[in-house]
Amino acid sequence: MEHPENDDMYKGLVVNAGIAQPSSVNPYLKSSKFKRRELTANDYVEGILKGDTVILSRAVTLVESVLPEHHSLAQEVIEKCLPYSGNSIRIGISGVPGAGKSTSIDVFGLHVLEEKGGKLAVLAIDPSSERTKGSILGDKTRMEKLSVHPKSFIRPSPSAGSLGGVARKTRETIVLCEAAGYDKIFVETVGVGQSETAVHSMVDFFLLLQVAGTGDELQGIKRGIMEMADGIVINKCDGDNIDRSNLAAAHFRNALHLFPVPDSGWTPKVLTYSGFYGLGIKEIWDMIYSYMDFVKENGYFEYRRNEQNKYWMYETINEQLRSNFYNNELIAKMLKVKEKMIQEGQQTSFIAAKQLLDIYFSDIVEKK
Amino acid sequence: MEHPENDDMYKGLVVNAGIAQPSSVNPYLKSSKFKRRELTANDYVEGILKGDTVILSRAVTLVESVLPEHHSLAQEVIEKCLPYSGNSIRIGISGVPGAGKSTSIDVFGLHVLEEKGGKLAVLAIDPSSERTKGSILGDKTRMEKLSVHPKSFIRPSPSAGSLGGVARKTRETIVLCEAAGYDKIFVETVGVGQSETAVHSMVDFFLLLQVAGTGDELQGIKRGIMEMADGIVINKCDGDNIDRSNLAAAHFRNALHLFPVPDSGWTPKVLTYSGFYGLGIKEIWDMIYSYMDFVKENGYFEYRRNEQNKYWMYETINEQLRSNFYNNELIAKMLKVKEKMIQEGQQTSFIAAKQLLDIYFSDIVEKK
Repeated sequence: MEHPENDDMYKGLVVNAGIAQPSSVNPYLKSSKFKRRELTANDYVEGILKGDTVILSRAVTLVESVLPEHHSLAQEVIEKCLPYSGNSIRIGISGVPGAGKSTSIDVFGLHVLEEKGGKLAVLAIDPSSERTKGSILGDKTRMEKLSVHPKSFIRPSPSAGSLGGVARKTRETIVLCEAAGYDKIFVETVGVGQSETAVHSMVDFFLLLQVAGTGDELQGIKRGIMEMADGIVINKCDGDNIDRSNLAAAHFRNALHLFPVPDSGWTPKVLTYSGFYGLGIKEIWDMIYSYMDFVKENGYFEYRRNEQNKYWMYETINEQLRSNFYNNELIAKMLKVKEKMIQEGQQTSFIAAKQLLDIYFSDIVEKK
Repeated sequence: MEHPENDDMYKGLVVNAGIAQPSSVNPYLKSSKFKRRELTANDYVEGILKGDTVILSRAVTLVESVLPEHHSLAQEVIEKCLPYSGNSIRIGISGVPGAGKSTSIDVFGLHVLEEKGGKLAVLAIDPSSERTKGSILGDKTRMEKLSVHPKSFIRPSPSAGSLGGVARKTRETIVLCEAAGYDKIFVETVGVGQSETAVHSMVDFFLLLQVAGTGDELQGIKRGIMEMADGIVINKCDGDNIDRSNLAAAHFRNALHLFPVPDSGWTPKVLTYSGFYGLGIKEIWDMIYSYMDFVKENGYFEYRRNEQNKYWMYETINEQLRSNFYNNELIAKMLKVKEKMIQEGQQTSFIAAKQLLDIYFSDIVEKK
């Protein structure tokens, strides 16, 4: 659940070159004497299309707002930006804690801006940010160079809620950023399994960061994540760690052989690099751009974006159906009772489910 | 969707030592002059508890019936059997076509019956069986020895429907078989990805059958399946194929290192065997029984069965919520329209979803 304290996560927020987070749509400031002028949908859209980062930030805050009265305005802004979106490379970046994600994103981002020009937006998905108070991307010092770069826009994960809700907000933010001319989008995630699936379903290329472990083992890959990767890059391949990193790379290459070729037809690559010393960064970008050429040529790029759009419609429907059900008061009360009956062998899972569904649908009808 | 032709899949069905499939609950025989006496719930339960395989078969057919009037009787029988269920080892067996699943199940089954006594039920989940007309377990000749063994009960996959529906029926059949004294349950599946997840959520041990490929590569493991396995066994480790099989085993062992230790605390094992020559079978059973000792001692066994029961309640609810929605006539009509609008960039996925949900909930209320 979202509550006022979540706003803490915006403290220390980086919005392009140190511009502070606008708070006009923060409900807790509504009573302030000096509140900012409310923007119309057209104000937002015009500002976004001009690439105004202050307006863009305010639009993202609007999208993230939990207030029902903001929803329709947010949706109107997104709809109007939609025709201007889509022209970017979207890259998902995942890695375990300790893999050096922030340093890597900093180095990757700087490199691509210098070599290719354009603008970069760095977003995040972290459904656990209520607990961690938004540590993901929330700390300015973590991306030293990007955070002060005029062509970058860094935005932390939307405040906590269901994964589906957090992911939806990030996905809508991609639309706004693209309309504002950001042609490179990073979506960072924390490596906790389910959020990778969400990121995977909104990016073109999924990059998995790893480090060689202390032995010949690799650290904590969660279920199914390796199989999503279009590229696996092993950080900290420097100094004493070069042999271990190369060995780790060989292990990953062997392991990738065990999986079938992905739908894209692209065989995932494994590379080593050093984020700290800036080694091997060009090779990573070469890989990403080769991938883009490859999937644009074979038609997978367009196919996948289209599938992703449909996926999000179905995902939103399914999430909403579930949340309507589980947030129903009667159901919330009955669930524990049914769980106990099942545990004690008094009722089958299926009868319990059926009875709960009957209660729910009767309740919907009665309430109207 | 299920339709009369599905009954074809019961042709050639093996129900213990060649006893034919009873057809008393087949609606298409209802008009027959010589129809069998209808059984009451108590008749079914009494027969099952006595281990009467004819009654057990009829009860399974009842559970699988698509006729609404059979549902409540089926549920009553299951509820009454529930207190007598649970005392078995449930083993999921998956493997790609060509891995020699039938031969292996035949050999594994015979071995455990000879060494440990008791009774073995072999069930299956194959949501694609509408297409294949139930080839999975449907062909008597595929399990030469088990099919004529007095202590075995072989039952093909329930006829086609949604995976959720098929899985539910198999899971209910496990309850009936356990109540009938089957203390070893195999649940076979076809290696098509989603059905593995369903099987994994109803068994204690998940066994993945593999064969070494023609090169040093291994054949077609679907996403996420390797990570479910408690044991990977490589078949056809005989003759010319011994070196290849051992190499494959080494590859799997290396690959398993890349994954974190499963919640059970058990490190998955990789073994080689020859189903055809009956080599290495004892070692596979030793592995399974070590696993059972291990998880019973550390409490994971009970924990997981409990979690599985709850999982099935939630899964049934979620599946029903979705199926109510997508089978709604208005929704079915509107979905394609919305998909097209999304594809053409006229509407966001989220607005399309919201509009469909509004239509659906209004329709439910109106219909009552």
